[in-house]
Amino acid sequence: MTESRNVAFIDLGTNSIRLLIGSIEEPCTFTLLRKEKEIVRLGEREFGENILREDAIDRAVMVCRQFSQLAKTYNAAEIVVVATSATREARNQEELIERVKEETGLDINVISGREEARLTYLGVRSGTDFENKTTLLIDIGGGSTEIAVGDKEDYSGLWSFQIGAMRLSHKFQKDKEIVGDSAYNKMKKYARTSIGASASSIKKKKWETVIGGSGTILNLADMSFRAYGGKEGTIKYSNLKKMSTTLRSLPLEERKKVPGINPERADIIVGGTAILETIMEEFGISELRTTDRGVKDGMVADYLLEMKECSQNGMSVREASVQKLGKSCGINEKHAETVVRLALELFDTSKESGMHKLSDDERELLQYAAYLHDAGEFISFNNRREHSYYIIMNADLLGFNNREITIIAEAVLHQSKKLQSSVNPQTVLILSALLKLAESLDRSRNNVIKSASLQKDGKVSAVLKCTAEGDATLEKWGLENCRKTFQKAFNRDLRIKIKQAEKQ
Amino acid sequence: MTESRNVAFIDLGTNSIRLLIGSIEEPCTFTLLRKEKEIVRLGEREFGENILREDAIDRAVMVCRQFSQLAKTYNAAEIVVVATSATREARNQEELIERVKEETGLDINVISGREEARLTYLGVRSGTDFENKTTLLIDIGGGSTEIAVGDKEDYSGLWSFQIGAMRLSHKFQKDKEIVGDSAYNKMKKYARTSIGASASSIKKKKWETVIGGSGTILNLADMSFRAYGGKEGTIKYSNLKKMSTTLRSLPLEERKKVPGINPERADIIVGGTAILETIMEEFGISELRTTDRGVKDGMVADYLLEMKECSQNGMSVREASVQKLGKSCGINEKHAETVVRLALELFDTSKESGMHKLSDDERELLQYAAYLHDAGEFISFNNRREHSYYIIMNADLLGFNNREITIIAEAVLHQSKKLQSSVNPQTVLILSALLKLAESLDRSRNNVIKSASLQKDGKVSAVLKCTAEGDATLEKWGLENCRKTFQKAFNRDLRIKIKQAEKQ
Repeated sequence: MTESRNVAFIDLGTNSIRLLIGSIEEPCTFTLLRKEKEIVRLGEREFGENILREDAIDRAVMVCRQFSQLAKTYNAAEIVVVATSATREARNQEELIERVKEETGLDINVISGREEARLTYLGVRSGTDFENKTTLLIDIGGGSTEIAVGDKEDYSGLWSFQIGAMRLSHKFQKDKEIVGDSAYNKMKKYARTSIGASASSIKKKKWETVIGGSGTILNLADMSFRAYGGKEGTIKYSNLKKMSTTLRSLPLEERKKVPGINPERADIIVGGTAILETIMEEFGISELRTTDRGVKDGMVADYLLEMKECSQNGMSVREASVQKLGKSCGINEKHAETVVRLALELFDTSKESGMHKLSDDERELLQYAAYLHDAGEFISFNNRREHSYYIIMNADLLGFNNREITIIAEAVLHQSKKLQSSVNPQTVLILSALLKLAESLDRSRNNVIKSASLQKDGKVSAVLKCTAEGDATLEKWGLENCRKTFQKAFNRDLRIKIKQAEKQ
Repeated sequence: MTESRNVAFIDLGTNSIRLLIGSIEEPCTFTLLRKEKEIVRLGEREFGENILREDAIDRAVMVCRQFSQLAKTYNAAEIVVVATSATREARNQEELIERVKEETGLDINVISGREEARLTYLGVRSGTDFENKTTLLIDIGGGSTEIAVGDKEDYSGLWSFQIGAMRLSHKFQKDKEIVGDSAYNKMKKYARTSIGASASSIKKKKWETVIGGSGTILNLADMSFRAYGGKEGTIKYSNLKKMSTTLRSLPLEERKKVPGINPERADIIVGGTAILETIMEEFGISELRTTDRGVKDGMVADYLLEMKECSQNGMSVREASVQKLGKSCGINEKHAETVVRLALELFDTSKESGMHKLSDDERELLQYAAYLHDAGEFISFNNRREHSYYIIMNADLLGFNNREITIIAEAVLHQSKKLQSSVNPQTVLILSALLKLAESLDRSRNNVIKSASLQKDGKVSAVLKCTAEGDATLEKWGLENCRKTFQKAFNRDLRIKIKQAEKQ
């Protein structure tokens, strides 16, 4: 039996405060229960003197109090709080820390810029398919900008720069109206100078793909998509140039109305744009894709990594996450486990016999597909395959990349006419066919088939040999419906031999 | 607390035997757990002498035994069995009944043709939106064809004819190859003669729409769609004529390969086609839509109708079904009930104030939307609205028509950009706006807002007055996000007044 407890994570940023509340089940699964964000502007008019203003502290304390109460409503056993740039640089940070402690009981951990970059990396990695590529991550905050380079295994470099959307906007935007060329060029120059010292060491990392996070970048991507179309959630340098010209030529009130912008961000978007433009130029980036993950998600990932169970317990993060989803859907676990057993027996024996060359990775995906094949049944028995597909695709299963999740979901969908495999049709076809056999072999849900093997039988046939204990008539009938899928997957006729086990 | 028990339903038809197993919860909800069908051909070579063949009885007994065992696997407390045409007309029906009783313990109820028509009507009605239209139902079985006319309240006429796909095919198809014009015309003449005596009383019913069920009709619709396109699940008379010409010009082996046909049905499809063609001609039907519902579903509906609780208990079928779905999804019931209460208070007060003219029916839909708004959260907190939408649209909620289910689901979806109301955009807009306010008013999930009212305030504003007990800060912040939706739905600005309740 796994135990679960709720934990809350608060990221006290320069511009906004974010809250995640989730349930953590050993070994190491996290299920998001609640997500909140309030734009608080803790760093408003801070930079320069490096003093957090009284009213900004008031706002932050109030939001912390609310979030802390919300966490209590969810019976959070623990509330983890980190504060970044605005707090980090404030000479009066103690005032904030003490007031938050006094009024809410929360302990704020002020983290360094590199730690912020590390959390950003962990957060993005935990929800993004890096596809075996070395990736450059950019996160433009209100007060600082973090850059990380890494692949799915680990990061290879972390950087933090004291440039941020709020900081640059407030420093160089003298009034609230249009931002002239001169002011904009000053922003970019300031950004370039800040990054400059580390530019060559960053460039050495030779990334293959670029991902950007933060409100600034998500807003720019949204504006770009609405103005220029293209692929949603991406930003092209050429479009960014056009947007920056438009944005700074508009007075604030007009800027708030640009389609895709968050009006609360309109006064600091130009500073953010200057930073992104500078980075893309400095590193010759012509296009990047975006993510909504950041420090808050990194806090969760870090928390899970620190739970020793993750590595010591026999169950992997993937297995635990799959099992948890199955349980939430109220699947028949006995049936699910029987189908898993049979599917894997069929996979192994048919592989030995040379019927396919799928790898252990794909075997593992078959195991999860078999476990979750009936997940959608509780929505409705009719079209249950499609419902299972929908749930698997949307459940934010942990530890998988998109490709893997799609294969699992499509293997489950098998019987449907709608199957249009987008990832790996041949793999899905074989896994589907094996899963369909395994399901049929427990059609009575009585665990009647004690063993099953699948082998080549001459050049055009294959033989499925099973040992049954008890009446396997329903299973036999069920197998009749597998012939077509089987033929399609293996290009062989299916012969079926079921014998009764000797009585012990 | 509701109690649930599982019940199985077996329909012993002329061509196939169907099984439904479901869980029945008082008051009167049915959740399908299992559905099976085996083509058994109980009526094979029966008609003429009206003797069920030994081998056909063997097959039926065997399938009954399997289905009965499957029902036991599901702990079915009761197994209801009806037998139709093949058994009804067989002089040796006792032999079948006794053998089934002996070998499986099942009691077969042989039902009349009109009872079969009544069950068909109940079955189709329980899963189809009749849209206030009088509907003609056609069900072409292996041995008999049933016709019913009715609307969503009740049927106004029931008929049964001794013509069926198997019966006519075996009577007039002399060999297994092509069916010549002469044989086909004999089939049609036979069908016309059978229907003839009742044709005028049927015509008097003046239906507005036609729905056809049964394997024959579903197969024809599938073939038609693949051959001629058009709307899936419908059959045009003009296409049926073309298909009948093609089908009977093909030898059996070729006929089995026609896209969309079930090969097991290829030898009796021509007889079924002749019957449908005759009926469409006789009643001047140029097009019909199809359903997969029939006698088996009617058995369930009838069973539920007979459960006295359905009418005596305070909860309606709808309410019970909605509550059950919510529970399966593990929603936070306290929060759901708070949102229901607030949504209805807002609906009523804004209606009194003349802000909308929605009816009590729509109020009821708001209630269900409020109860189910977080149903999808267990799949993933991210995009939970879309998941709730998906679940509501697919959960086979009982007692609703499609339009109503769509309104509930779309009202829940509200915040999403994807909302493209297909049914009643203005209704959905208003229900969404009210639901969004109600949700925000319990953002802390602490049931802080004790009462809420919404009224006109001058010509361009509306005022939301609430009484709170405790800290309602999160609720206030949440309301800020409702302004846009509100403006869109009511064309008024929203003013917000929250006062603290006097301490008792």
